[in-house]
Amino acid sequence: MTLTDSLVDFFLETRKHTENICEPLEIEDYVVQPIVDVSPPKWHLGHTTWFFEEFILKPHFKGYMIFDEDFSFVFNSYYETVGKRVVRSDRGNLSRPSVESVYAYRTHVTQAIKNLFSATQSQELYDLLEIGIHHEKQHQELLLTDIKFILGNNPLLPIYSDSFTEHPIETESQEWISMDEGIYEIGHNSNAFCYDNELGRHKVYLHPFKISRNLITNQEYIEFIEAGGYKKFDVWHAEGWDWVNQNGISAPLYWHSIDGVWHNYTLNGLQKVTPKAPVTHISYFEAFAFAQWKGCRLATEFEWEAAQTNFSWGQRWEWTESAYLPYPFYKKADGALGEYNGKFMVNQKVLRGGSVATPIRHTRPTYRNFFQTSLRWQYTGLRLAK
Amino acid sequence: MTLTDSLVDFFLETRKHTENICEPLEIEDYVVQPIVDVSPPKWHLGHTTWFFEEFILKPHFKGYMIFDEDFSFVFNSYYETVGKRVVRSDRGNLSRPSVESVYAYRTHVTQAIKNLFSATQSQELYDLLEIGIHHEKQHQELLLTDIKFILGNNPLLPIYSDSFTEHPIETESQEWISMDEGIYEIGHNSNAFCYDNELGRHKVYLHPFKISRNLITNQEYIEFIEAGGYKKFDVWHAEGWDWVNQNGISAPLYWHSIDGVWHNYTLNGLQKVTPKAPVTHISYFEAFAFAQWKGCRLATEFEWEAAQTNFSWGQRWEWTESAYLPYPFYKKADGALGEYNGKFMVNQKVLRGGSVATPIRHTRPTYRNFFQTSLRWQYTGLRLAK
Amino acid sequence: MTLTDSLVDFFLETRKHTENICEPLEIEDYVVQPIVDVSPPKWHLGHTTWFFEEFILKPHFKGYMIFDEDFSFVFNSYYETVGKRVVRSDRGNLSRPSVESVYAYRTHVTQAIKNLFSATQSQELYDLLEIGIHHEKQHQELLLTDIKFILGNNPLLPIYSDSFTEHPIETESQEWISMDEGIYEIGHNSNAFCYDNELGRHKVYLHPFKISRNLITNQEYIEFIEAGGYKKFDVWHAEGWDWVNQNGISAPLYWHSIDGVWHNYTLNGLQKVTPKAPVTHISYFEAFAFAQWKGCRLATEFEWEAAQTNFSWGQRWEWTESAYLPYPFYKKADGALGEYNGKFMVNQKVLRGGSVATPIRHTRPTYRNFFQTSLRWQYTGLRLAK
Amino acid sequence: MTLTDSLVDFFLETRKHTENICEPLEIEDYVVQPIVDVSPPKWHLGHTTWFFEEFILKPHFKGYMIFDEDFSFVFNSYYETVGKRVVRSDRGNLSRPSVESVYAYRTHVTQAIKNLFSATQSQELYDLLEIGIHHEKQHQELLLTDIKFILGNNPLLPIYSDSFTEHPIETESQEWISMDEGIYEIGHNSNAFCYDNELGRHKVYLHPFKISRNLITNQEYIEFIEAGGYKKFDVWHAEGWDWVNQNGISAPLYWHSIDGVWHNYTLNGLQKVTPKAPVTHISYFEAFAFAQWKGCRLATEFEWEAAQTNFSWGQRWEWTESAYLPYPFYKKADGALGEYNGKFMVNQKVLRGGSVATPIRHTRPTYRNFFQTSLRWQYTGLRLAK
Repeated sequence: MTLTDSLVDFFLETRKHTENICEPLEIEDYVVQPIVDVSPPKWHLGHTTWFFEEFILKPHFKGYMIFDEDFSFVFNSYYETVGKRVVRSDRGNLSRPSVESVYAYRTHVTQAIKNLFSATQSQELYDLLEIGIHHEKQHQELLLTDIKFILGNNPLLPIYSDSFTEHPIETESQEWISMDEGIYEIGHNSNAFCYDNELGRHKVYLHPFKISRNLITNQEYIEFIEAGGYKKFDVWHAEGWDWVNQNGISAPLYWHSIDGVWHNYTLNGLQKVTPKAPVTHISYFEAFAFAQWKGCRLATEFEWEAAQTNFSWGQRWEWTESAYLPYPFYKKADGALGEYNGKFMVNQKVLRGGSVATPIRHTRPTYRNFFQTSLRWQYTGLRLAK
Repeated sequence: MTLTDSLVDFFLETRKHTENICEPLEIEDYVVQPIVDVSPPKWHLGHTTWFFEEFILKPHFKGYMIFDEDFSFVFNSYYETVGKRVVRSDRGNLSRPSVESVYAYRTHVTQAIKNLFSATQSQELYDLLEIGIHHEKQHQELLLTDIKFILGNNPLLPIYSDSFTEHPIETESQEWISMDEGIYEIGHNSNAFCYDNELGRHKVYLHPFKISRNLITNQEYIEFIEAGGYKKFDVWHAEGWDWVNQNGISAPLYWHSIDGVWHNYTLNGLQKVTPKAPVTHISYFEAFAFAQWKGCRLATEFEWEAAQTNFSWGQRWEWTESAYLPYPFYKKADGALGEYNGKFMVNQKVLRGGSVATPIRHTRPTYRNFFQTSLRWQYTGLRLAK
Repeated sequence: MTLTDSLVDFFLETRKHTENICEPLEIEDYVVQPIVDVSPPKWHLGHTTWFFEEFILKPHFKGYMIFDEDFSFVFNSYYETVGKRVVRSDRGNLSRPSVESVYAYRTHVTQAIKNLFSATQSQELYDLLEIGIHHEKQHQELLLTDIKFILGNNPLLPIYSDSFTEHPIETESQEWISMDEGIYEIGHNSNAFCYDNELGRHKVYLHPFKISRNLITNQEYIEFIEAGGYKKFDVWHAEGWDWVNQNGISAPLYWHSIDGVWHNYTLNGLQKVTPKAPVTHISYFEAFAFAQWKGCRLATEFEWEAAQTNFSWGQRWEWTESAYLPYPFYKKADGALGEYNGKFMVNQKVLRGGSVATPIRHTRPTYRNFFQTSLRWQYTGLRLAK
Repeated sequence: MTLTDSLVDFFLETRKHTENICEPLEIEDYVVQPIVDVSPPKWHLGHTTWFFEEFILKPHFKGYMIFDEDFSFVFNSYYETVGKRVVRSDRGNLSRPSVESVYAYRTHVTQAIKNLFSATQSQELYDLLEIGIHHEKQHQELLLTDIKFILGNNPLLPIYSDSFTEHPIETESQEWISMDEGIYEIGHNSNAFCYDNELGRHKVYLHPFKISRNLITNQEYIEFIEAGGYKKFDVWHAEGWDWVNQNGISAPLYWHSIDGVWHNYTLNGLQKVTPKAPVTHISYFEAFAFAQWKGCRLATEFEWEAAQTNFSWGQRWEWTESAYLPYPFYKKADGALGEYNGKFMVNQKVLRGGSVATPIRHTRPTYRNFFQTSLRWQYTGLRLAK
């Protein structure tokens, strides 16, 4: 089996997996956008496809027949380099293209990629294909969390699937792992795929610190709620305190108190909160406030990366104290792909780890996820440090 | 044929007609809400059904099996009397209930009404059924104009139907009809159905006035545009002028200038503007400004009603100068049906006539339609007076 | 004494009275604008002066020396005809021109008008001067109500004056005055000054109605509050109900419940509410809701004008049910003065009467005041009709 | 001369200097708040005074007579610990307390502090006094930049003073200072005063970098403008690009193009831009975009601190690439003073250096200033690194 075969297989598996995620949906579920951060599922299906068409097929496949000229307008996300785009907040206003035609678009592009790669040995194209695959994997995670929001925001609270496990029990107990002072190397360090924001392996000096073996559980988080954590201004950032009050926040996203018992909407429908599962769907502001309340803090992304072999991770994206900034030797890629990461390196926080929604082969110890400090619809959680 | 049979037939025709309007839609088209004034088609389908269930079946049909308890929450519009409701601006965020289940709901309720009326002779129920039918007819008009907005706001500008005639030629030419000074009787005056806001026939004194035989055409409106009408502050109300500038308005809704030629989106797709068709999709502000520019004015609703036998009407709802206010003897109905009209009698303008979207048997000389002064998605037009 | 002398005296008295109103102010009070509807006192001082400079001195006084070229930008209000202007919401951001220089501007213009009118006999100039005087009188009322808002919105609740009587006792008791059906003449009918919106005396047909001899008092209004009037959706317009809920309205403006006793801020400082005084600082929405709750309604402006000789009025501007619309023969004036009234004839309600803040010789039976339906900072009240 | 004497002298000088800054103002200038970030000068006068009263006099001076109970409500800024406060955006709506009474309040508190410190030797009080002095110095800088905004936002563009030098010539030329790789110590390291956010001296590892000897000048910045820098999306952060477009930004704050020549408002009035002066009044977004356009970057705060002995600084606060985060050993102070710094450590950028508005003895190499990324009314500038 050649590298090409293997990469094309990886491509096909990835394309299939995206469609598998959508399999339980009704057509109506593909269309709506209840908040601006959430994109309609059909937009994810189209956008991941557009990425292959725009960056591989159009420039590199002579004779490629564009599926529909209008789709590049509809499915461009934020790539200013490649022309006009539908404003993000309008994605949920578009009933067309239909779901059926988006699937036809997927098939058309998937087949064209197969055809192209059956006849090329270009390393540049391999690299682009690999980026496209990882781009689609990123969207798989968003697709799932967006579906959860679409269904969980619906007053009927429909079930997505009976079998998806969102709330695994945290089997580790709280225990402080001590890390030594010294110089650590940070950043990607192999030939395997990574994003540009992980590159530039470099040294950081870390002072001695302790990091917890376990993630904070729902049970611990309920203690915070019951101790009035959402009403103690002194454990919050000023901006976080405003956010709590302006939005009337008093529990994680998807939590409902029913007759005094905490329930949460899950992809299996409305359920009682699992006490031993790691808490999730909290903002950075909440993670920070919880840590303050505990007399601890969040780890920096450097501490996390240095310590991560000492604990298990991957159920929750873990908020860190680190702002999302370029590494010392960061160079953004040329052209449109240069818009992938660098332009977001301001006013966001780094998350490390991975989540129950992260597709396989998509995270790694150096992976840097990032979101604005108030967002909660990802499977975010927290681990204490001090 | 008994009165009941005839009314039930009217009911069944009406129910069918609503579904006929939706026949050309894709499932996706039923779901979206691009602006707050536009409701998703499936909401119209459900809401008109809920009206029969809530006001007839639940209180009057012993043993009626409610289709789904949650639907009364989802499909209530603004009836504060009958419990909570989905906020209007959130209607487009709901992918469920599915279109299929909304149709099942329709069938269930339609059948139950048939069953109920096969065994009743109650005048109260006849009256409620008649209101429900007319309520659904009102929504048929909105359904069509909402569909137009959903498709016409989509960058792909999809065709709804090849056969719908939106832009009939105005065959009358401009000619002033002179009306005498005197006392006129205004308001509904027969046993036929009407809304409560038309009742209370009463006298008004009209001074001599002239009203035009024809509606203003696209051709005439283009003259206004070309004369800089959208830039002459002195023909606009102060509030209209702010509206023009804040929204960058320079032509009727759905108009696009392509290579210097005016096109408009129609239910048949994008077309060149028909010069001789009556202009439509203009706000009250625009209608007023056009009239000012012509040195004329809009008629009051009383003038219109007094003069209406002298001209043909029915293609465009005609903006009048009259604010939507109660007639002298106005009494709002008891209970939830009292919320139908009276609570909107502030800060809106009356429109008279009817439009290409108005279902048959739904308008009449005394019918009072009403909208806020900036709205344009109905088939609104204007007739001059002086 | 000639007409000119008399008019110039009237002018000088009016100028003086404006300054008298400001006499109790600190310099700081002249500057702020707590809400967009309220203008800083120094703006009123400057704007009323600018009106004379712009419409009389600049065009008609050869050799007139403009006080400061920049002032026409700063003190223009909404006259699109005469050039750029400071956006209304920015008036409170301007610390300059200083109060001292605004007073110097007043003196300069007052003197120039005196000089001009000592040497003219032009009727056109008399007419302009008369309009300017009445314009300043209108601003005197706003000046006082804006001062009240500026002080009453300050947490220190400073006293403006110990002697101003805002809350006279309503000496009439509730009694229905019956008015006959028939044709009534409406509109101004003498050689005395009036605004263009009162002209065009014309006939209206009124059906028999009853109107109350007294204004609704605080005591009666407290009954409405205590009966839960602000929580009964069915007595409110839909738009009024939204306004109540979005703004958390539960009493008239300036009312504070202190240990269960209603107080209100007055120009004499914080006081207990006077039970027998007519209620004031209510919006149209509140006036309407109160009337609905009483099973009555508000009068139309025509009913009010027809009946007004039968009751005393002048303490409160009285909300009517009438929208502010042009009279049948309305013609707006040419040029900038044409912007005075006509451009506001949409989405506002007419108020009739006058108030404790209305300067002498400024109201009359045909005077039409008008405001948006949610505004409360004027001395608004209500009289029932049925 | 004792330590107390010296500290009290420092206190008195500081108090005097604040008042000196206000000396050129008209009373009206003390009152307004054109944007939410700018506070009225009288608020600064009162708030710095309140700080001494609230944290020193009230708790530590037995028998102290509070000047006015209401002032603690009016002049509290964001200290949630010490009770209610006027919402920040409402500061410009308050005409009272008058400027005169705020000065009386200053005198009262200054005298009380003198009295208290003539009779105490408490180190705790010395420390509180020192914080209070530095707090007032921080506000001196804001006071000056807020005055500039108040005057510079006024269409009359009044002069503050003829002698203030805002735009000193940058005498250094662009030259790269090379810094070695290695471990550097960061943070405050003496007994002199500093804020809690500078404490916790700690090690950082720096890779080799170069930093420029000079600040970017107006001349260089004009090149960026003329090269279309504000229109090249690829040199901006996504959030910066939105900011540019939503606010129509095309030059630094206070810049006006008059007949093709760049002018800027200065405290001396409107002036031509000085080509050789360091650019100022730019946001972080602009500083970043300029650096990107040059193929360089901004320094981190650690690089800046490590390199700062090699260049002169102090005319402009310099935007760094570092997010404002706690140092490794950061502990926030107990009680209300703990609200001073820590609660702002999210979504802001660190600035290093000082500015023409910084009072003497107020900045130092470890001083960490911080602002949101879009703010421009401080004397911000930029120095390149690579």
